[in-house]
Amino acid sequence: MSDTAQPRETAATRDRFQHFETISLRYADNDANGHVNNAHYYAFFDTAVEGFLRATALRQALAGEVFTPVVASSCRYFREISYPGDVTLGVRLAKLGRTSLTYELAIFTEEDDLAAAAQGTFITVCTDKDSRRPTDIPQAVRDYFEAQA
Amino acid sequence: MSDTAQPRETAATRDRFQHFETISLRYADNDANGHVNNAHYYAFFDTAVEGFLRATALRQALAGEVFTPVVASSCRYFREISYPGDVTLGVRLAKLGRTSLTYELAIFTEEDDLAAAAQGTFITVCTDKDSRRPTDIPQAVRDYFEAQA
Amino acid sequence: MSDTAQPRETAATRDRFQHFETISLRYADNDANGHVNNAHYYAFFDTAVEGFLRATALRQALAGEVFTPVVASSCRYFREISYPGDVTLGVRLAKLGRTSLTYELAIFTEEDDLAAAAQGTFITVCTDKDSRRPTDIPQAVRDYFEAQA
Amino acid sequence: MSDTAQPRETAATRDRFQHFETISLRYADNDANGHVNNAHYYAFFDTAVEGFLRATALRQALAGEVFTPVVASSCRYFREISYPGDVTLGVRLAKLGRTSLTYELAIFTEEDDLAAAAQGTFITVCTDKDSRRPTDIPQAVRDYFEAQA
Repeated sequence: MSDTAQPRETAATRDRFQHFETISLRYADNDANGHVNNAHYYAFFDTAVEGFLRATALRQALAGEVFTPVVASSCRYFREISYPGDVTLGVRLAKLGRTSLTYELAIFTEEDDLAAAAQGTFITVCTDKDSRRPTDIPQAVRDYFEAQA
Repeated sequence: MSDTAQPRETAATRDRFQHFETISLRYADNDANGHVNNAHYYAFFDTAVEGFLRATALRQALAGEVFTPVVASSCRYFREISYPGDVTLGVRLAKLGRTSLTYELAIFTEEDDLAAAAQGTFITVCTDKDSRRPTDIPQAVRDYFEAQA
Repeated sequence: MSDTAQPRETAATRDRFQHFETISLRYADNDANGHVNNAHYYAFFDTAVEGFLRATALRQALAGEVFTPVVASSCRYFREISYPGDVTLGVRLAKLGRTSLTYELAIFTEEDDLAAAAQGTFITVCTDKDSRRPTDIPQAVRDYFEAQA
Repeated sequence: MSDTAQPRETAATRDRFQHFETISLRYADNDANGHVNNAHYYAFFDTAVEGFLRATALRQALAGEVFTPVVASSCRYFREISYPGDVTLGVRLAKLGRTSLTYELAIFTEEDDLAAAAQGTFITVCTDKDSRRPTDIPQAVRDYFEAQA
């Protein structure tokens, strides 16, 4: 529709993602509108990215001398989600820059597990712990990424 | 820098915004990294948009037959923020579509109130309460927006 | 120990509880101390009580003309819990007054599912939706409670 | 009333407290009932205790070799509070044991700043960072407490 800021994306399906995390909704996730408040979607994204890193060798490769703060995040909300229930987060490492890692994420519900209820991106930058400056992504991460491609 | 997903934006300054809200940080806003978790930025955005609507006649114009769920949000994080302290949120109604309202938001800290620590967007869609379908933005909102331009 | 406000309770075990809910921890649940912030325990309690009511006929019996706001809550923290991982909440309806329902709750972790990491209470009062005054607990709730005893 | 677990306390007034912190409510603090979710009250307590410690010499006295995890907390809810608005937290250091510090807290709203909307307690235990065992409260804290009495 011409009046939206970006062209309407088609909601992603599960086969697009590499890793899944189940997150249980909480009573207080619902706001006064009776659905999960938009900010909590990012708490789910955050948890899913960390879960993905821990489930692979990537968390180890991105520790030690470096850390990876978030520099950008975004979400498109297709259908509302509400407590009670669980959601399943899908994650994929979508792109590597010299210093940045871009993740794609989606939220699936039980009722309709084909099309995402929401999806978004998370960009982190590999940062040197001492200098606090962006630094090259460790080779182990590149190797992992290329092995997936 | 060629490796980031979008060109690096220049952090906005306060004069760009129409409305400001002060939000006090809470102890539990800081996550295990000792800074405010990225998801909370959206709770601040949400609060600032609502505060802006309440401070103008817009909240009233966007109630009744319609409601305005968020369909997209995004944030770029320039500098970390940490409890303790307050942050000031700047808001402006940046764009009206036929049914959508796009807000620009920024987070300012006390130490450096010129350049935003983070900034982002919030897109809501004017939706009919009965049909749950997008509907035209009320004329009162258009009038307000044009009076600002 | 004589210097604590209340005598040290022995941590409860799972066999004390009637209903269990698994709650997945989230990255941002950990605060700057690297463990789940004390306030989130109550979000777990809340979710567990609601889950218990939904899993029985009680949610239905406590809807309609009445609602059940929380009038008191408490928690004792025996061991810290931390993301990542799941916790299991145990719930029991411990006591019925004329208008109040007292729940006992406990949080169990995967490592040691015998002794609770934390336990607490939640007291809600059956309140008339119109008058906003305490009102008698519905008979269906009393019947359920007595059938358990 | 005989059916509540504890005798109904009278809501405290502001003159009982030593330190005050203003906390701005957030849109997502309200849950599906349209009022601030009960768990958030503890996030306010947490923030108020930390603010009190930072406003006095106590934060410094309770750092270094020791830390002070929460071992118990409680709250009684007298009146509901709702976004939008600010709340004012009152804090006092109510009792020192050999190793424990007990705080009393209350939440005041703008409409009626005399009687607390909620009040509670927070018990922390002075703990040795290495041994993770309770340890004597530093003398500087005792001196502060006695000077207040």
